[in-house]
Amino acid sequence: MNNEIKIYVVGIGPGAYEEMTGAAISALENSDVIVGYTVYVDLVKEHFPGKAFLTTPMRKEVDRCVLAFEEAKKGQIVSMICSGDAGVYGMAGLMYEVGEKYPEVELEIVPGVTAALGGAAVLGAPLIHDFCLISLSDLLTPWEKIEKRLLGASQADFVICLYNPSSRKRHDYLQKACDLMLQYKSPDTVCGTVANIAREGETSQIMTLKELRDAKVDMFTTVFVGNSQTKNINGKMVTPRGYRDV
Amino acid sequence: MNNEIKIYVVGIGPGAYEEMTGAAISALENSDVIVGYTVYVDLVKEHFPGKAFLTTPMRKEVDRCVLAFEEAKKGQIVSMICSGDAGVYGMAGLMYEVGEKYPEVELEIVPGVTAALGGAAVLGAPLIHDFCLISLSDLLTPWEKIEKRLLGASQADFVICLYNPSSRKRHDYLQKACDLMLQYKSPDTVCGTVANIAREGETSQIMTLKELRDAKVDMFTTVFVGNSQTKNINGKMVTPRGYRDV
Repeated sequence: MNNEIKIYVVGIGPGAYEEMTGAAISALENSDVIVGYTVYVDLVKEHFPGKAFLTTPMRKEVDRCVLAFEEAKKGQIVSMICSGDAGVYGMAGLMYEVGEKYPEVELEIVPGVTAALGGAAVLGAPLIHDFCLISLSDLLTPWEKIEKRLLGASQADFVICLYNPSSRKRHDYLQKACDLMLQYKSPDTVCGTVANIAREGETSQIMTLKELRDAKVDMFTTVFVGNSQTKNINGKMVTPRGYRDV
Repeated sequence: MNNEIKIYVVGIGPGAYEEMTGAAISALENSDVIVGYTVYVDLVKEHFPGKAFLTTPMRKEVDRCVLAFEEAKKGQIVSMICSGDAGVYGMAGLMYEVGEKYPEVELEIVPGVTAALGGAAVLGAPLIHDFCLISLSDLLTPWEKIEKRLLGASQADFVICLYNPSSRKRHDYLQKACDLMLQYKSPDTVCGTVANIAREGETSQIMTLKELRDAKVDMFTTVFVGNSQTKNINGKMVTPRGYRDV
């Protein structure tokens, strides 16, 4: 009798309907109830008429998980949606943690295009070789840990993709991060920013690490910092696939 | 008259048709010619009848790019396909590099679900927090560079996802990589492997880093190594979203 109830945890991609996978669309079409943060629910609503939509505000993530499990227990087929990929700074992990109290519910994670991949496609090909994703949000992570990762990733010459580079309270975090990366990366390192990936108002820019330090970014921006080989090819940010000439 | 010809560089996801995005399907449907490595062409062929399929074998990547550009110059609408995401160890970068000789051709990169995301969804939620992708292939990257990245990423407590963990010639590379990671990560670190993600014969396993060291993996396996917080929750690999209790 175990696991007879299933919840889909679905990454809807960066924003546009056509960036969703077929599996994500199927999961939402098969659901009675779609649960999510208000902004993401608004992105998909028009494409799934007749569904019940339940939302909780930002920072109410645990409540949102409980809501999904309780709806599922009522016999509803439920999808919990996240922007990008549910498994990258998304709800999939918390759903497993909260789910320890709901052993009768099975989770099916449906992957999606996370901002790193969606943004990379806009900029060119920055993530062709080894890269790191680092979130600059210190809401749940001590800044010392973030600092250590920025330094470690820079010293090992990773391409670095920064999530949550800024917010009203953290307006100088990108500058602090750049100063740390500049300890190991050249000020001429090719960098890029993409805002509102695959949504209305999408913008992107290529610049150097020195310029990135003083760039204006917001919470809808994803930041890309190249490795020592990353090039600007006619306005596109391109990392070669290796370090040997072929 | 610049950029009047366009080539789509398309990530088809880990394998199953339903893991493709709508944008990827549209690009292929709009194309006359689909170019790719034989294995990936075979994955999509049945879903796109009436298209011309052109393939080149492994390690003939530059030839494959030239083929795509030459077809496009003939007036054909061309898609270059890659498994996973075209921008992650894929062809997008090389297409820009080769494309310097074809300034009249514009590239449109269509992102997809890379193996890290597809495999993570199978294992649970291993990539919820900061992570690195590292390829163990030293075909184009000196091993010293790979070693430095494994050590740097381990020391900074990243979750690490390993691509190309093994091949006939590199059968002991995963063991070497584990020995390096064990310098900073506990032998009890929760790890996972997924083979043939979203394809026939998909298998997955959760184990410790100590067990991973002696695990058998092949070139179709993606390997996940947790951070210090990653847990095994009822057989699922789950990384919490932060380091503070909430």
